[in-house]
Amino acid sequence: MKFCPECGAPVALSLPQDDHRERHVCTVCNTIHYQNPKLIVGAIPEWQDGRILLCRRAIEPRHGLWTLPAGFMENGETTAQAAARETLEEANARIEILDLYAMYNLPYINQVQLLYRATLLDLDFSPGVESLEVELFGENEIPWDTLAFRPIRYTLEHYFADRKRDEFIFRNTDLTPPTR
Amino acid sequence: MKFCPECGAPVALSLPQDDHRERHVCTVCNTIHYQNPKLIVGAIPEWQDGRILLCRRAIEPRHGLWTLPAGFMENGETTAQAAARETLEEANARIEILDLYAMYNLPYINQVQLLYRATLLDLDFSPGVESLEVELFGENEIPWDTLAFRPIRYTLEHYFADRKRDEFIFRNTDLTPPTR
Repeated sequence: MKFCPECGAPVALSLPQDDHRERHVCTVCNTIHYQNPKLIVGAIPEWQDGRILLCRRAIEPRHGLWTLPAGFMENGETTAQAAARETLEEANARIEILDLYAMYNLPYINQVQLLYRATLLDLDFSPGVESLEVELFGENEIPWDTLAFRPIRYTLEHYFADRKRDEFIFRNTDLTPPTR
Repeated sequence: MKFCPECGAPVALSLPQDDHRERHVCTVCNTIHYQNPKLIVGAIPEWQDGRILLCRRAIEPRHGLWTLPAGFMENGETTAQAAARETLEEANARIEILDLYAMYNLPYINQVQLLYRATLLDLDFSPGVESLEVELFGENEIPWDTLAFRPIRYTLEHYFADRKRDEFIFRNTDLTPPTR
């Protein structure tokens, strides 16, 4: 941030009174502009035969790789609504949201990711503009080597293990930057 | 938002290609400026005798009312770190974070609130600059009529009920605007 979104004057980094870190503060109107982590919300849409809906990404990052439907939460919606909307946008698919299943903290990119269990309601799905393909995968068909993101891999691994035991356990995982 | 934080030129609301809602877009550099919900994260610090640490607010909104330590999550930290930091700032209190206990969606103010169970590690606490008082309350001493926010009330109600059954169950609650 270089300019004040409210008055257009230059901002400077400074420490507001009683604050514990520097903020972008307007040099003219003195508005303090906070920057905060963003929520990414998605779903694990399961069809009645146990297969899971994945999308192959038509956009960067990770163009061409497979992911669960997920994206940035918008103002004015709930986390469950965000998961259903992203699934509709990316896969033209309708789901019923079940329990919150996984939360990932990625502090190095200022993100918190939430994934919900969900029931896929019909087979009338197709790629949205951000997807190249949308497909159902059984546990033995998951494209493990071409998954887009670590939280997607971890979520699917836990999901299939939990499903075998018939007990889905919410997990809260903190991630550090990938090493490669 | 009236001006572009990147170049200082005026922004205008317009619908980017393939998007589903209007955004603030710079009229000169064309940067799209997204606005997203914020995370509020807090803790339910329990001392070894079962009492819970509450803070009486020294700031608006709800100046003078009681709350659990909680506040806006910052960039570069995890949700658990945010809960511990807020507890240190508001109550000068050290805690050990346990499980995530409650999530509240407040879409009418673009917030998602998370509350963790936590163990208060010592009795060396005192009001931070945002608190008038910090005190431990047993279940029968909670100031129910002067609690600051609905999620605080709901969380404490569930917490004491769950503690009696010795089973803490994560809850995901969507709130609509208060009616009064």
